[in-house]
Amino acid sequence: MTLRDIGEFGLIERIAARFSTVGTEDGSLGIGDDCAVLSRNRDELDLVTTDLLIEGSHFLRDAISPRLLGRKSVAVNLSDICAMGGECRSAFLALALPGELSVAWIDAFFDGVQERLREAGVKLLGGDTTRSNGPIVIQFTILGSVSPAHLKLRRTAREQDLICVTDCLGDSGGGLRALLEGVARNSAVEYLIERHLDPCPQLAEGAWLAASSDVHAMMDISDGLDSDIRRIMEQSRVGARIEVEHLPLSSQLREVAAEQAWSAWELAVSGGEDYVLLCTVAPERHAALAEAFQRRFGRELRAVGRITDRPGQLVYLRDGVPMDPSKLGFDHFRTE
Amino acid sequence: MTLRDIGEFGLIERIAARFSTVGTEDGSLGIGDDCAVLSRNRDELDLVTTDLLIEGSHFLRDAISPRLLGRKSVAVNLSDICAMGGECRSAFLALALPGELSVAWIDAFFDGVQERLREAGVKLLGGDTTRSNGPIVIQFTILGSVSPAHLKLRRTAREQDLICVTDCLGDSGGGLRALLEGVARNSAVEYLIERHLDPCPQLAEGAWLAASSDVHAMMDISDGLDSDIRRIMEQSRVGARIEVEHLPLSSQLREVAAEQAWSAWELAVSGGEDYVLLCTVAPERHAALAEAFQRRFGRELRAVGRITDRPGQLVYLRDGVPMDPSKLGFDHFRTE
Repeated sequence: MTLRDIGEFGLIERIAARFSTVGTEDGSLGIGDDCAVLSRNRDELDLVTTDLLIEGSHFLRDAISPRLLGRKSVAVNLSDICAMGGECRSAFLALALPGELSVAWIDAFFDGVQERLREAGVKLLGGDTTRSNGPIVIQFTILGSVSPAHLKLRRTAREQDLICVTDCLGDSGGGLRALLEGVARNSAVEYLIERHLDPCPQLAEGAWLAASSDVHAMMDISDGLDSDIRRIMEQSRVGARIEVEHLPLSSQLREVAAEQAWSAWELAVSGGEDYVLLCTVAPERHAALAEAFQRRFGRELRAVGRITDRPGQLVYLRDGVPMDPSKLGFDHFRTE
Repeated sequence: MTLRDIGEFGLIERIAARFSTVGTEDGSLGIGDDCAVLSRNRDELDLVTTDLLIEGSHFLRDAISPRLLGRKSVAVNLSDICAMGGECRSAFLALALPGELSVAWIDAFFDGVQERLREAGVKLLGGDTTRSNGPIVIQFTILGSVSPAHLKLRRTAREQDLICVTDCLGDSGGGLRALLEGVARNSAVEYLIERHLDPCPQLAEGAWLAASSDVHAMMDISDGLDSDIRRIMEQSRVGARIEVEHLPLSSQLREVAAEQAWSAWELAVSGGEDYVLLCTVAPERHAALAEAFQRRFGRELRAVGRITDRPGQLVYLRDGVPMDPSKLGFDHFRTE
């Protein structure tokens, strides 16, 4: 039996079963959320997130500039801390680089790292550099902290909560598809590609939502809505209903999808790497929260579905009618 | 200009110049020691260490069993925390695995990880697993803590300090050489190979030395004495003198070196991965400290040289006469 047979989730289950620390006596939380949570004292929890990017598996050297690669590799980790309601504190970078890599490449990579760290007020405090005989390997560990009252988990969604997202979905997936298919560039295509190559973690939105007790569960969308809502469902032992006509789509994605005959809905459901926040909100409090969110951030805290009492069941509805999400790709229903 | 032209130390200098945080206002310490040090409050400092192991660069899948690979990848990180005088608290593992890897391999790897973590009382609290299209990549981040009074740095060696090591040198290097040269196995060869494949971090010794104010600087020997004493020299702006006849050699290394016509001294000076502790001790306090160390651990805290007032100068002496350490390999002087 190989790893391919059990899959990544099978592997994580095996590891979690062995090392499970969720709900240990000191309040620490292990495997199963965006970050690990370490209970230090009553006023503060530590957050730790770690992410591995390998050339050939996670990026291609020719497909992303070193500066954007530096920015993105920081951004995805900042997003994990912010998705738990935390503030980022310090960063550690382990890097394996092939000897033939140019110093100009390395300097541009660090330009990008430094830009994103500075924007977030995070210091790079250490790491490890080694020679690689094979691919470039980039590994960030980011430490953060959060007050216990602001901590947002995947396992705290409640039945009847509204499922909300903080920004448009599918742009990054559309950008990736445009790159892979060599779509001719126009301003909408450029926008999607930029969203893919240079995602912006929603640090301010995360901190704002963390401060509200009406937000019950939260995570960031890295693998795609379909995959990530299932994590909340598993951890919270609930079901979910997604109303596809409510998924927020950018005008750029609508435009490019129409030109290319792509299903924008499919990209919104299955495309990953949007690094938008996904949260569940007390239904009776959503209107007030969304109004305040609109005032603060100038856009909607869009409700796209509801948490249900049917654990494990994820239902997609279109205009109230259940549909098979795997058909989204062949459906080509109008996105404008 | 490529990475090969500037080398690993050139790279670290470039990164450190960009992100330097040594001596920041809050007492945090960044790049330049075994771990990063984060100042949390007056009573406790956080330590963070991170290390990247890549198949083909740092290990060969056929040359080490998965269980020992798991043990070793934990051990080298525990050693970094202990070398700063700290206690290990929690571990995070980022892992990239090729799809064809057997589940039996993965389980055995985690057996080894779990053994070493348990021995040290450390919990695995999180991480990241991804599919690799190329090599196995193993990356541990270990968090620890230390009281400010016990923190041992590389930059706190003082002139006239005695340079001490906590155990024999060169065994791991001898074991690696035995593996590479296919030396016929006997019990001494097996011992050296075990020291290479399954190094034991000196956690108890590190904690004991950390509690003594007579120990000024400390680090672990991972790259070899010659390379690592230079790190203390650079950070402390001092020189050093090593008396090669005082380097502690195991009877097993002496035996195998004699059989194979290797220079045991060369292995002791240049062979890495012993994960023995290297420290500098107030000269007038060494006798009492070494006696207490002997009582506690049943072996010597061996003085192998002295810190000097000549920054950057590393001198090797044999029976008081300066010698060229690069000649050690061709010297073949008696090791018994």
